Amino acid sequence: MLQNPASKYQPFVPVRLTDRTWPDAVVSKPPVWCSVDLRDGNQALIEPMDIERKIRMFEQLVKIGFKEIEVGFPSASQIEFDFMRKLIEEKRIPDDVTVQVLTQAREHLIRRTFEALEGVPRAIVHLYNATAPVMRRVVLGMSEDEIVELARTNAQLFKEIAAEHPNTDWTFEYSPEMYSDTEVEFSKRVIDAVTDVWQPTPQKKCIINLPTTVEHSSPNIFADMVEWTHRNLQRRDCIVLSVHPHNDRGTGTATAEMALLAGADRLEGCLFGNGERTGNLDIVNVALNMYINGVSPGLDFSDIDGIRATVEYCNQLPVHPRHPYVGELVYTSFSGSHQDAIKKAFAARKDGDIWEMPYLPIDPKDLGRSYEAVIRVNSQSGKGGISYLLEAEYGLQLPRRLQIEFSQVVQHEMDTLGTEFTAADLWRIFRKEFSMDISQVPQYRMAEENGVVTMNAKLNWDGQERVLEGQGNGAIDAFVQALSQSLGRSVRVMNYAEHAVGEGANAQAVAYVEVRVDDGQTMFGVGMDANIVSASIRAIMSGLRRAAARQTVAA
Amino acid sequence: MLQNPASKYQPFVPVRLTDRTWPDAVVSKPPVWCSVDLRDGNQALIEPMDIERKIRMFEQLVKIGFKEIEVGFPSASQIEFDFMRKLIEEKRIPDDVTVQVLTQAREHLIRRTFEALEGVPRAIVHLYNATAPVMRRVVLGMSEDEIVELARTNAQLFKEIAAEHPNTDWTFEYSPEMYSDTEVEFSKRVIDAVTDVWQPTPQKKCIINLPTTVEHSSPNIFADMVEWTHRNLQRRDCIVLSVHPHNDRGTGTATAEMALLAGADRLEGCLFGNGERTGNLDIVNVALNMYINGVSPGLDFSDIDGIRATVEYCNQLPVHPRHPYVGELVYTSFSGSHQDAIKKAFAARKDGDIWEMPYLPIDPKDLGRSYEAVIRVNSQSGKGGISYLLEAEYGLQLPRRLQIEFSQVVQHEMDTLGTEFTAADLWRIFRKEFSMDISQVPQYRMAEENGVVTMNAKLNWDGQERVLEGQGNGAIDAFVQALSQSLGRSVRVMNYAEHAVGEGANAQAVAYVEVRVDDGQTMFGVGMDANIVSASIRAIMSGLRRAAARQTVAA
Repeated sequence: MLQNPASKYQPFVPVRLTDRTWPDAVVSKPPVWCSVDLRDGNQALIEPMDIERKIRMFEQLVKIGFKEIEVGFPSASQIEFDFMRKLIEEKRIPDDVTVQVLTQAREHLIRRTFEALEGVPRAIVHLYNATAPVMRRVVLGMSEDEIVELARTNAQLFKEIAAEHPNTDWTFEYSPEMYSDTEVEFSKRVIDAVTDVWQPTPQKKCIINLPTTVEHSSPNIFADMVEWTHRNLQRRDCIVLSVHPHNDRGTGTATAEMALLAGADRLEGCLFGNGERTGNLDIVNVALNMYINGVSPGLDFSDIDGIRATVEYCNQLPVHPRHPYVGELVYTSFSGSHQDAIKKAFAARKDGDIWEMPYLPIDPKDLGRSYEAVIRVNSQSGKGGISYLLEAEYGLQLPRRLQIEFSQVVQHEMDTLGTEFTAADLWRIFRKEFSMDISQVPQYRMAEENGVVTMNAKLNWDGQERVLEGQGNGAIDAFVQALSQSLGRSVRVMNYAEHAVGEGANAQAVAYVEVRVDDGQTMFGVGMDANIVSASIRAIMSGLRRAAARQTVAA
Repeated sequence: MLQNPASKYQPFVPVRLTDRTWPDAVVSKPPVWCSVDLRDGNQALIEPMDIERKIRMFEQLVKIGFKEIEVGFPSASQIEFDFMRKLIEEKRIPDDVTVQVLTQAREHLIRRTFEALEGVPRAIVHLYNATAPVMRRVVLGMSEDEIVELARTNAQLFKEIAAEHPNTDWTFEYSPEMYSDTEVEFSKRVIDAVTDVWQPTPQKKCIINLPTTVEHSSPNIFADMVEWTHRNLQRRDCIVLSVHPHNDRGTGTATAEMALLAGADRLEGCLFGNGERTGNLDIVNVALNMYINGVSPGLDFSDIDGIRATVEYCNQLPVHPRHPYVGELVYTSFSGSHQDAIKKAFAARKDGDIWEMPYLPIDPKDLGRSYEAVIRVNSQSGKGGISYLLEAEYGLQLPRRLQIEFSQVVQHEMDTLGTEFTAADLWRIFRKEFSMDISQVPQYRMAEENGVVTMNAKLNWDGQERVLEGQGNGAIDAFVQALSQSLGRSVRVMNYAEHAVGEGANAQAVAYVEVRVDDGQTMFGVGMDANIVSASIRAIMSGLRRAAARQTVAA
């Protein structure tokens, strides 16, 4: 049993706003998006990307529409340095994209970082140092004053080195490391010291980035912190306020959304939430959440499966089948009642309607997915899913009572086999159940006079060849009369439906008849033939065979 | 590019509380937990569980400590019905566990459900029907009054059938389906109608369950809805207010947490968030979030890897490597600065301290995980991780400057190989770099008189066998003097450290020396031997070889 954590774990609540405004706020435009896939994402990989995979990722990010891309930590290793040089020297950075690099607040690392950026047209240089109490006390052994001085000195160094390279359009970014674990007042003190050095203006802002380096508290508490910071920072109008959530508590997406409500302007994250430990903020998730709430995110995920393939290749990590918006199973309903509702809502939906689809928060087509995967059939499924698949794949429009009857057949097979059924499996079961593969073509002759149809037919039943004759007000009626007389039983058609499948020369008629023999249970039969009368006769015989198999008719 | 969604997607905001209290609330005790793994989880599997896997899952849930377990939908299929019967007839339900079953609001399904429960000592019977506008309009074609009547009639049927089985202790549960998409006023109307029939009391409560059947809106909006409902329901003191979040927007965990702040008493969810589409609420996630915020969840995840193995077996779906608290990589830091901080904080931590560990929100030991997986080394790692692994696995306590020197060696290998290094890889690189596998044992004789040590030694250097003699105030000093004279170079020891590795007869001494030849760069050498003088001599020779390889000494 887990121990009582009261003595070991304690919540960290740096501020509780009582006059918070974020729960009433509404986000009506997208934030500035910054991908950190090539930095924070990459550093968390079992096998970090080589240059070729880095280029693939970079090009994918550009294609999605990121305008700010953190490409690495050039002072940390040669491969990171070389990649930055390659992007610059091979002129791979589009004019509307700004690359970003991270550096610790140490002089030789900062110098090496600027060296890597030599000749870049635009860049965001991102400085960080630890500010959280545990880092001050245990890791660095520095006082608050010393931390402020560290930040100030290195901010000054940024300014000086940047001034030596006037041909680059520099933007500075600063992160108080573990903002989420730092007293808000102290974060403000450090940030104000940095902006005091940088002297940003409303025309030339700097970026202040607030990392939930490790996610310890629920998103509402983080939102209170961000709103406090948003309201209390000096030079707020000269700052792009950024957040950098992680996902240790599984609430990174909500944290980002509430930070935007609380005043943040910019989000740092990774595609599908790659990153250290449980990962960084999943930018795809936040962007598509905005989309389904009616805000255009300004990023292009219309080929989400292609993006997933690239990301899986670059990261060598899978995307989970239940990952929001992109997982293999997320547009799938296995439950019968869900399938039923989706089927009805698709049928009722008209082009241009608001998307209001039960069990489908987004139109899969908007992400380049198809409806085919929406409905799958397992032992929990009902008639809705089965009918949907038979209609989508084989063009059958089953009458409702036939849906119920056939779903029991499928259910029975499911209980035996216990696996998922594809449309092809269902089609095989359907053909077998309704004896559709019996090759014998009914032979008949038909004449009509004054509205009375006379039918002569020849068929095998019960091991005997039978010759029938009957009259009725239509072909089916006549055939049923003939059958009743020949078998000495009352055969009645309770229900009849027919439609075409396919087009032109390949078109087939499908007939569904619900027959009752004597006073037995009604039973559906199905027949398919290029000729409509043949299809109907096949359907009646199919129903009779099923009734016989259930011993309401001797066979 | 994604289209502008303004005409297709619109947010659904059923209520905005202006006098909300939930953002100031604090959760100080766990909710009632209800696992729906065997129902909502199971129905979403590609291959639903067979009876054997159902039993495995049920027993795992009991072991974790769930007291309420939704075991199925007995009217939906024979396998579900049979499983319920098996649990009852084989007396597999512990006395402190209540099983729960779900049924749609249709008479034959309700009767079949109660039939499955015949003879159970206690049970929660869970009724649902659709209430959301899209379901009323498109799927059911029913008015609001008809929906209320449907709920009332079936609630009445529950009451009547239950009264026929007085030996079972019945609890009733009702879910307005798609509560999250229903006008709060209408949900209240239906719920009040149901509780008006059931007439629960504070002693015999019923459960009212609010599903975010599909997650459309952010957790703060759902919290407003729940707080409204919590404050406006009739007979609130006779109700256990439950929520059943899904995860379509990736915010299921936050939704559950905020619903608890807003007044909910109970959570329905699945282990690791299995369930339809993106899954149900991940109960493990919410429970462990409570734990690290100082609240005991009352569920036992102290063998989380064992639980994961069972769940992966039963669901035939993987848990993602970055899944909160349980994924393979979530206690791993690859980044050098993270590793450095963790190493320092582990060293500073004393038993009984509050858990305040940078980059580790929970003590892996509390979940039966080990520290070993915490630090892994890739090309983004620095000296901290490398040293940690060599210390954890091989007992080496590297001096700080040696850490830096060796991390550059590792970095170079990384840049070449671009892969992750295990502790064994690092150990191999270490042994090679410090020539620790050279088998030649230094031969020496030593005599001490009046504090002066005279050392005679024989060794191979530069292809020649050399015989040395020197004097000093200790063995190392004497050896170095002998070496200097023999080579005609100034060899100095700048730094020396030594410790034992292993215990008893297997103990070895490890010596670290930092040598300087003439005025060249200082260079560490490492030697390991059962004898401490031999270890030191090996270390000096190791340093000399490294210096020679860098051509500060001809070799």
